[in-house]
Amino acid sequence: MLHLRSHSSPEWPGWALAHLDEILLDHAHCEKKAASTAINLIFRYTQHESLMEPLSALAREELEHFELVLGHLRRRGRAFVRQQPSAYASRLMEVCRKHEPGRVIDTLLCCSMIEARSCERMQRLHGALAARCDAGAEDADPALALLYESLLASEARHHATYVDLARGLQLVSEDELRARLHEIAEHEASVVARASGEPRLHDGP
Amino acid sequence: MLHLRSHSSPEWPGWALAHLDEILLDHAHCEKKAASTAINLIFRYTQHESLMEPLSALAREELEHFELVLGHLRRRGRAFVRQQPSAYASRLMEVCRKHEPGRVIDTLLCCSMIEARSCERMQRLHGALAARCDAGAEDADPALALLYESLLASEARHHATYVDLARGLQLVSEDELRARLHEIAEHEASVVARASGEPRLHDGP
Repeated sequence: MLHLRSHSSPEWPGWALAHLDEILLDHAHCEKKAASTAINLIFRYTQHESLMEPLSALAREELEHFELVLGHLRRRGRAFVRQQPSAYASRLMEVCRKHEPGRVIDTLLCCSMIEARSCERMQRLHGALAARCDAGAEDADPALALLYESLLASEARHHATYVDLARGLQLVSEDELRARLHEIAEHEASVVARASGEPRLHDGP
Repeated sequence: MLHLRSHSSPEWPGWALAHLDEILLDHAHCEKKAASTAINLIFRYTQHESLMEPLSALAREELEHFELVLGHLRRRGRAFVRQQPSAYASRLMEVCRKHEPGRVIDTLLCCSMIEARSCERMQRLHGALAARCDAGAEDADPALALLYESLLASEARHHATYVDLARGLQLVSEDELRARLHEIAEHEASVVARASGEPRLHDGP
């Protein structure tokens, strides 16, 4: 359903738990970046009226999540500070064609893949956090487990929204769209496989 | 309350009605730009944690208004297309000092003045639209009159939010803040007085 061409490694959830506050900080930056990307697309593609409201609504939701994650950082006694982003998004976007209409299609499909990978990683993270709660562990954080559970549906929906927006432009046939989504998903999996091991949501083992 | 140092000219509301669809299109772009500005401030001033949630919530509200105005454009049979922005915001921002902490204070206070002028202009526009409705005019648009009535409180609140955010940084004394707000309001009035007569929310007679 998420069109991902690879699973995160089995080590990822445990490793993420071991770097939880850095992952959480990265997550806050990712939500902020996702809102900014959606708004930049509104500015760049004003001529595509069908993108305007959906991207605006999506940006609002990313900002809501940004605020939610900031609240959890504060609750855990962590400051929201600058952090070097992972290379994931910029490497992923390298696949985008430079000329229209390829550029808009590829950009929307790359955004859809970021949402898909976020959803997969948050699902793993939720599982790991829930297991700590079930085990009655000292570092269990039920509120954080609930946060990730609550975000899964939105991330999956955003993945579908971006694919639907690309489709709705009617610039390519359904076959071309599916073929390109498959290519970009292959590229996404290769980017994930080349991760540098930084404690980030889209990086790690 | 809005700290404005000038009133819009008595001709402004009638002139705005005569260019209503261009004003409405500009309004949509202004809401989008306001959201983008708030998000850019989140990126630029991550070190000022007190700005993060309020600016994010403000950006969400600007995006909601963007979507509302898009709906009214569509209802009136007008497309959302690119449009040359008025010189108002860029001329206003020329007053900002180039170095911190002056830069952040001035930027926030300029944003507060944009919200204040928007509020004043929307109030005038609401009055003019309501008068057409009361007169039973053929071109009366009660839904648009209601829109502007509904936006007034938000614009006034956003003005206060930006001033409060500047104050909350505790980078300058209350006296310095008030003096600077006064200076920037004088500058804003001079920018409005130099308007070029384009049919834009912050331009015109």
